[in-house]
Amino acid sequence: MSNRQMTSSIGEQMHGWATDLFPICRSITGDGVRRTLAYLSDLMPGLTIHEVPSGTQAFDWIVPDEWNVGAAYIEDEQGRRVVDFARNNLHLVGYSEPVDRWLTLEELQPHLHSLPEQPYAIPYVTSYYARRWGFCVTQEQRDQLPSGRYHAVVDATLEPGSLTYGEIILRGREEKEILLSTYICHPSMANNELSGPVVTTALAGWLAAQDDRRFTYRILFIPETIGSIVYLSQHLDEMKRNTIAGFVVSCVGDDRAYSLLHSRAGDTLADRAAKVVMKHHAPHYVEYSYLDRGSDERQYCSPGVDLPVVSIMRTRYNSYPEYHTSLDDLTLVTPSGLQGGYDAIRKCIELLEHNSVYSATTPCEPQLGKRGLYPTLSGRGSADAARAMMNVLAYSDGTRDVVDLAHHIGLNPAEAISIVEQLAAKGLLSRA
Amino acid sequence: MSNRQMTSSIGEQMHGWATDLFPICRSITGDGVRRTLAYLSDLMPGLTIHEVPSGTQAFDWIVPDEWNVGAAYIEDEQGRRVVDFARNNLHLVGYSEPVDRWLTLEELQPHLHSLPEQPYAIPYVTSYYARRWGFCVTQEQRDQLPSGRYHAVVDATLEPGSLTYGEIILRGREEKEILLSTYICHPSMANNELSGPVVTTALAGWLAAQDDRRFTYRILFIPETIGSIVYLSQHLDEMKRNTIAGFVVSCVGDDRAYSLLHSRAGDTLADRAAKVVMKHHAPHYVEYSYLDRGSDERQYCSPGVDLPVVSIMRTRYNSYPEYHTSLDDLTLVTPSGLQGGYDAIRKCIELLEHNSVYSATTPCEPQLGKRGLYPTLSGRGSADAARAMMNVLAYSDGTRDVVDLAHHIGLNPAEAISIVEQLAAKGLLSRA
Amino acid sequence: MSNRQMTSSIGEQMHGWATDLFPICRSITGDGVRRTLAYLSDLMPGLTIHEVPSGTQAFDWIVPDEWNVGAAYIEDEQGRRVVDFARNNLHLVGYSEPVDRWLTLEELQPHLHSLPEQPYAIPYVTSYYARRWGFCVTQEQRDQLPSGRYHAVVDATLEPGSLTYGEIILRGREEKEILLSTYICHPSMANNELSGPVVTTALAGWLAAQDDRRFTYRILFIPETIGSIVYLSQHLDEMKRNTIAGFVVSCVGDDRAYSLLHSRAGDTLADRAAKVVMKHHAPHYVEYSYLDRGSDERQYCSPGVDLPVVSIMRTRYNSYPEYHTSLDDLTLVTPSGLQGGYDAIRKCIELLEHNSVYSATTPCEPQLGKRGLYPTLSGRGSADAARAMMNVLAYSDGTRDVVDLAHHIGLNPAEAISIVEQLAAKGLLSRA
Repeated sequence: MSNRQMTSSIGEQMHGWATDLFPICRSITGDGVRRTLAYLSDLMPGLTIHEVPSGTQAFDWIVPDEWNVGAAYIEDEQGRRVVDFARNNLHLVGYSEPVDRWLTLEELQPHLHSLPEQPYAIPYVTSYYARRWGFCVTQEQRDQLPSGRYHAVVDATLEPGSLTYGEIILRGREEKEILLSTYICHPSMANNELSGPVVTTALAGWLAAQDDRRFTYRILFIPETIGSIVYLSQHLDEMKRNTIAGFVVSCVGDDRAYSLLHSRAGDTLADRAAKVVMKHHAPHYVEYSYLDRGSDERQYCSPGVDLPVVSIMRTRYNSYPEYHTSLDDLTLVTPSGLQGGYDAIRKCIELLEHNSVYSATTPCEPQLGKRGLYPTLSGRGSADAARAMMNVLAYSDGTRDVVDLAHHIGLNPAEAISIVEQLAAKGLLSRA
Repeated sequence: MSNRQMTSSIGEQMHGWATDLFPICRSITGDGVRRTLAYLSDLMPGLTIHEVPSGTQAFDWIVPDEWNVGAAYIEDEQGRRVVDFARNNLHLVGYSEPVDRWLTLEELQPHLHSLPEQPYAIPYVTSYYARRWGFCVTQEQRDQLPSGRYHAVVDATLEPGSLTYGEIILRGREEKEILLSTYICHPSMANNELSGPVVTTALAGWLAAQDDRRFTYRILFIPETIGSIVYLSQHLDEMKRNTIAGFVVSCVGDDRAYSLLHSRAGDTLADRAAKVVMKHHAPHYVEYSYLDRGSDERQYCSPGVDLPVVSIMRTRYNSYPEYHTSLDDLTLVTPSGLQGGYDAIRKCIELLEHNSVYSATTPCEPQLGKRGLYPTLSGRGSADAARAMMNVLAYSDGTRDVVDLAHHIGLNPAEAISIVEQLAAKGLLSRA
Repeated sequence: MSNRQMTSSIGEQMHGWATDLFPICRSITGDGVRRTLAYLSDLMPGLTIHEVPSGTQAFDWIVPDEWNVGAAYIEDEQGRRVVDFARNNLHLVGYSEPVDRWLTLEELQPHLHSLPEQPYAIPYVTSYYARRWGFCVTQEQRDQLPSGRYHAVVDATLEPGSLTYGEIILRGREEKEILLSTYICHPSMANNELSGPVVTTALAGWLAAQDDRRFTYRILFIPETIGSIVYLSQHLDEMKRNTIAGFVVSCVGDDRAYSLLHSRAGDTLADRAAKVVMKHHAPHYVEYSYLDRGSDERQYCSPGVDLPVVSIMRTRYNSYPEYHTSLDDLTLVTPSGLQGGYDAIRKCIELLEHNSVYSATTPCEPQLGKRGLYPTLSGRGSADAARAMMNVLAYSDGTRDVVDLAHHIGLNPAEAISIVEQLAAKGLLSRA
């Protein structure tokens, strides 16, 4: 990892990485993805870059042609660039086909996209699977275009190439694995793009630094939808066999809400662990059903794939006004916002790493006092002090894992872990 | 079906039939039942009339003697008929034994029934299984009777005969069947009597006109309680083997509430289908537990019978002030009231006819765009359009039927049916 | 039983017994326990007294040395006893080791216990498993001690002896048994000590007088915690094999709340029976989870023991201000308070004695009228009279016991018992 990390908080580091990556024009394929992954490679030595050729079949889908943009603008008759991709890459509809044409304003209008209700925002629009071209502008910009003729230029290539993604596998003591998946396919947006890769990168760094990982970690940086479909088409069997929990990392950078979007099944280990972590990390978090899904959990939880994958977010996509516009920028995403997202997911991982089913080793309550675990003077109230410990013992009947113990007893997961480990060390609990 | 149907709405036709049938004096046996079934036979060519002799054993019951009334009245000393069955057949207690006797007003009083709290209503009273005679009058009428002597005449026969019921079986492609059961045993009352037979007749007409029925339909017009017990005693095995859902049709004619009374089990296919239909047909419907039962579901759901039978009603028996009085008439029951009851049950049948378990045919989401099922231009909000379709795909995992999909996703059942059939036609869903 | 019972209500008798037992200094071992059991023996002829030697191993515990107190006081320099165990046995910390020492007030302070927030209450403090000595005083008393030297005397023995408990087994027709367990280890306190033994004694008297008990009753008078652990260590297998329900009897004497503390499993027969009894006996009772436990259910429900044991209380330990102080006295505990606790537990036992699974013997509803169980004249409302009976028949499908029937239908348990027995006598229900 770079020196940057040594001298600032992880939240500030993540915000710095996002700042570096912000200007790159990413899409589901193309050099923007490659530049993004190259930057992240410097932060994560083990990151492997994969290229999947256009035309490759992946379940019901085919990897599309690769799209790269040289320049894209609209000139007026005086040669002034009234809209320019160079100023903001959201100005160009994603996957626009090449064009070089003069049009009247009336002819141009169907190729323009704007948001009347948000007159200062450039919308984010794509057309991956139908050939089109178009420009996205603020409503204010659009309203001020005088009639006349305009020169629309999209100097882009849309031709066979490949789809690019990054993958890092961190082996643990067990074959069972935890999935972290984030996307790298949106142009200059912060919460609904860069927050995911930078938080995932920080988590990968933290995990790589652990010298005794219990689980194996599969960490993916992929284009959304087509990327997860391609990846699943190549790794479905092993992922079904090994994945005990997974997290789609998206929209983890703003400073407003916390959100948990459940898996389709709704009660997998990932759901249960995330729920008890969020209850303590952010008691007012918003709980979403899988009906509210919107990112790669759509693939990971689809029928026939059925992985135990949830998504922990700050403010969920579709639920904040700046979503999918130029207003989703690096003032919306903050160091503390990113830190909160990072902390929440890391706590889930820590809980999973320590999660086991325990059984009390003796019938009846053990005598905690002789082991120094209980106050020896019993007056009114003094029993309360050892209450959490007694509760963990009382419910450790070989059917409840630590996640469930914490949930049932109302313990902070970190406290639950500490108690079971203390009791196991004293021989009062045994691991199933 | 008669010409009447051709020229007016089904609601108006049903109200017309009820108007024709209103004056007939029905009871659990007798010629009133026969006249009612004869009228309905003209509307339903396949209706078969069955006669079950008095004295026939049916589980714990015995078919009672048959009751027919010539005349019944109370005369004063001047020969004026102060109460007369000819004016309203509710005036006579059902199953009154013959009498021809002079009594003082004091002697007469124990044979009179009235409702002090509803002074203008004639109550509906019967005494099927204990020999009695009596007259029902308004409280106003009763209070005005001067003292003196009265001549009570019940010119009725109560002697061995038979119990009469109607049955129509409409065969479908499958042996599995759906039960519709209504009663024809109350005298001049509209919601708690005629609404049931006329809505059931209209449903039978609609079902008979379907040329490709999936299920077989067993449609019964029976006297309440003793009729369903007699019928079950003769058909229990086949009904247990084949019935997938059933509906008791009663109180389906007023224009106030909608009600769903659940089966004893509470979660059968009939319960689930009715619930999701009612949620969309009448979001403010009243949901009743089987504890609130009151019609033939008492027999169909009894231990040892255990059929999946619910009751969809407008305002439930016992829950409206006119219930079991002369005020339950054809101003309370309206064409639109009947239409609503008809529509609700028909929607349940349509849902059941199209109900199956589906599985997605490909892992991950399919590419709807290339099949013309998805907007190709992705901007903010455009994904919402295809949301219902994506949700149906996401939850079609081979465990949920269409009823359950509609319920879970919050879809109108008709919309759910349309989506699964569209997706099945494109090969994206396969029927289990 | 004594004459006392013959001439006053059971509530007054219980209060009388508690008054007699109040002054005795009980602890988890010692002569106070023996004197208490000797008194109860006079009321319960079958009570057996057991002695378990100090040093006996019981699961994770060892029976402690026996503690007996001759005298204990604090004298000032003028020989005035400023604190004296003879005045209130709560003044001495339970299991105080012998001492005979002059100290300054400053040296004495760490040996004093008081409650600043309840200045007129002597707290109840023990130190069973760590050697200490100490005195409990009111805050007012403590604040008035002038500086100077004090003579602390604890004339006690703390040496090998035995732990004493009482047991009575009342055989029934079946080997299956019901456990009643109460503790006899607190000094002069009323709700959180004597209410339990006196209510249990009254219940034992009532049970002994029943000449046709269905179940066997195991009734224990033990020191809390160590007593139940010792007892379980000797009887675990037979108790696991036979116990169908159990009740810890504690805090059953005040006149304020009613409480039900559930077993760890939460849905055992004991939980279900207690819940439906409390719903009718005391509709506003407080329902506690096992997380709120505090008495011997801690042992009976521990992992590996897993007995179906609940606790029915008036105001629960820890939930009233007088708890574990000298204010928990015989003004707080009243005859009617004790009567209420007795009645609630007795109703549970009566329900359990009559609890069985029943099945209707005929498909469809039986004809209640011909058996004199149903009104023969059917008018509006008359059906309601037989409603409870019809409901019991409707739900007696061989899967629900009387507890469940009463709960589901909303019947008072006594009414449910009466109905099933009436229906069984008529041959309409058969016992599974």
